[in-house]
Amino acid sequence: MTNEAIQLGDLLDQFNTSDEVGQNRLVYNQQWLRNQRALILLGQEHDAQATVDDYGNVSLDFPGQEISAPIATGSHMDTVRQGGCYDGLYGVLGGFCAIQKLYQQGHLPKKPVRLISFSEEEGSRFPAAFTGSNYYTGHQQVTPLVDEMGITFDQARRDAVRQLQTIPGVRRQRAPLPASFTELHIEQGPRLAQAHQSLGLVTGIVAQDRYDVTVYGQANHAGTTPMAQRQDAMATASHLMAELYDLANKSSKSLSFTIGEIHVSPNVSNVIAERCTFSIDCREESDERLATFLTAMQVVIQHFENVTVKQTLHVPATPLSQALRKQNAEIATRMNFPFQELFSGAGHDSQIMSTVTPTAMIFVPSEAGISHAPTEYTKMSDLLYGVALLATSLSVQANES
Amino acid sequence: MTNEAIQLGDLLDQFNTSDEVGQNRLVYNQQWLRNQRALILLGQEHDAQATVDDYGNVSLDFPGQEISAPIATGSHMDTVRQGGCYDGLYGVLGGFCAIQKLYQQGHLPKKPVRLISFSEEEGSRFPAAFTGSNYYTGHQQVTPLVDEMGITFDQARRDAVRQLQTIPGVRRQRAPLPASFTELHIEQGPRLAQAHQSLGLVTGIVAQDRYDVTVYGQANHAGTTPMAQRQDAMATASHLMAELYDLANKSSKSLSFTIGEIHVSPNVSNVIAERCTFSIDCREESDERLATFLTAMQVVIQHFENVTVKQTLHVPATPLSQALRKQNAEIATRMNFPFQELFSGAGHDSQIMSTVTPTAMIFVPSEAGISHAPTEYTKMSDLLYGVALLATSLSVQANES
Repeated sequence: MTNEAIQLGDLLDQFNTSDEVGQNRLVYNQQWLRNQRALILLGQEHDAQATVDDYGNVSLDFPGQEISAPIATGSHMDTVRQGGCYDGLYGVLGGFCAIQKLYQQGHLPKKPVRLISFSEEEGSRFPAAFTGSNYYTGHQQVTPLVDEMGITFDQARRDAVRQLQTIPGVRRQRAPLPASFTELHIEQGPRLAQAHQSLGLVTGIVAQDRYDVTVYGQANHAGTTPMAQRQDAMATASHLMAELYDLANKSSKSLSFTIGEIHVSPNVSNVIAERCTFSIDCREESDERLATFLTAMQVVIQHFENVTVKQTLHVPATPLSQALRKQNAEIATRMNFPFQELFSGAGHDSQIMSTVTPTAMIFVPSEAGISHAPTEYTKMSDLLYGVALLATSLSVQANES
Repeated sequence: MTNEAIQLGDLLDQFNTSDEVGQNRLVYNQQWLRNQRALILLGQEHDAQATVDDYGNVSLDFPGQEISAPIATGSHMDTVRQGGCYDGLYGVLGGFCAIQKLYQQGHLPKKPVRLISFSEEEGSRFPAAFTGSNYYTGHQQVTPLVDEMGITFDQARRDAVRQLQTIPGVRRQRAPLPASFTELHIEQGPRLAQAHQSLGLVTGIVAQDRYDVTVYGQANHAGTTPMAQRQDAMATASHLMAELYDLANKSSKSLSFTIGEIHVSPNVSNVIAERCTFSIDCREESDERLATFLTAMQVVIQHFENVTVKQTLHVPATPLSQALRKQNAEIATRMNFPFQELFSGAGHDSQIMSTVTPTAMIFVPSEAGISHAPTEYTKMSDLLYGVALLATSLSVQANES
């Protein structure tokens, strides 16, 4: 596997930058544009037909003996702020390497093969995630979005996409849907690394609900307002948060519950808090168990006064293709690659793609479970296990009758 | 009392502005400078000797028959951001009206009388409070302070003070200490208003401790990190805060306990909190009871792991002059003014002045207990009760042998 090692490592070096803290490929910014352009040129060098749609999703179509819907792989080009070198990019460049491996067999596969580099998945620049795969699959888009600098989504999108669509040879259109989609991705959690497994086959993606909970109080002087006469939003919020954590810890083992964001007003040490808003992120492998927890959560919240709850996200659990997972398990077994089946606690483009085409995911380990950080790391040998499994999977799918 | 009503109301109108949200006389800014200048000119019109020290504290000395240390009154000129029309300013302008009333008696008092307008009490521009009265009383100052705009305390101070010290007739020096100090101030709490009392005689100022408590966790992905493997700073912080509130609510009735400020890092809804820092503001009339609570608080905190506590303020309880309070109580009784004795839950220049001279405070009600806000309000009749009691108190003190 030496040749691929050099190629994938070189590509990762070329597409990541080392002149700032972490990777900052926010959708439509300069680094993003540089990479999508480089990917198009790379594909064209290898005889792929490049297509760029109006959201900046790049499709590289490699020919097959037949004219049919392609077998697709890929992931997203964008990162979080100060992100790592692998999240998203590994699925794009690893996908490219897998396709190269397939075409190095010396004959065209029956079906065409496609590499997709989705424009945006992280929601790190504009307050919306999965805009790339949502557009790709024809889902409705919310576009009146503005970034931190006041630039609108549509302005940024048009400026960047124009520069990709005017590259010679690029087809401008929404690519027709593929016959299947397989995404290679880092796990982003610690399970594969802890189990010393190089490969994970993803059974599904968790259900996810997010809420903003706001506790209302009355701002007043911390020294002159008698305790008995206070409406202290922080006093209420701290008890409510503690009870919700207690409830979560008593719930099913597959539940994850996080209060990651708090905003207090006026947030001054000698003023009683007037308002405290905190986020709730809860995820479950099972829609039913998540619903059970949410019902219990509402009961807890109802015991508190002056509290409002606003749902900000609701994503049902997404089972991925059982047929593809079974096929990948058989291939891995045949190749003598140990693997583990697992659920994904993070969202992925695959959950959008799975609404329109059979979809599979292959995970490789994240050292110490770290992702979305400059210290995100996966050993090259693990990265190459993923590429090898994907190459065979694409080959099998593309040569089936 | 009609004449004083017009005069005090006119003065308050003249020294407050109506062209922005609330009063924003941060120390050494334009509004502050305008008012200290206007006060100096007002004093000079009424034959007072104006003195401005190097911190911008203004002293207006009105003559007595004898040459001796003056009987002083006054308060501070600065406000919080978006402050009210009365906090500080009422003690300055009400003090001026009381002195006028005294001199309208037709003969000079035995002792001279002084009005002080302290430069700064609120700590609203630079991260230090009481810089005016601390300088006035010769206490050590911490001056390497910088405001939000990056302007240093010393630069702002020198620019503003130069403009006051160059007003013709102004003496530039630190004024010698007065024989006593009586401060007129709004209560800032609800007790007088709820008791329908127009006057409060302050027995002392609360002891006050502030802390920053930091809970450390480990930032990680909210979806992919198993609950059992998390170090969630918010999970710990919410339980700790709830237990501290429970402890405070079981403690003495004169304790006030407030968590007003929280900072979470990275403060993102789908990332487990790496760090949560919250403030604790606790106040008590009694140093002993405060110490008892703080000991119990440390015991609670020690039950939690990965927590550090940093003390940011320690002010012992300040008893004010019993002799002056007794005298003021006798005067009020003689004038048929009902009053109530009470503790101050807020800090005041009086707690600094009481370290160098016998000090008293006279409170008037704050409607609904609101202060530090544009809606801060005290009825004119209550304001005038305060001025009348202060005028008689100054007269009695200045004419004692």
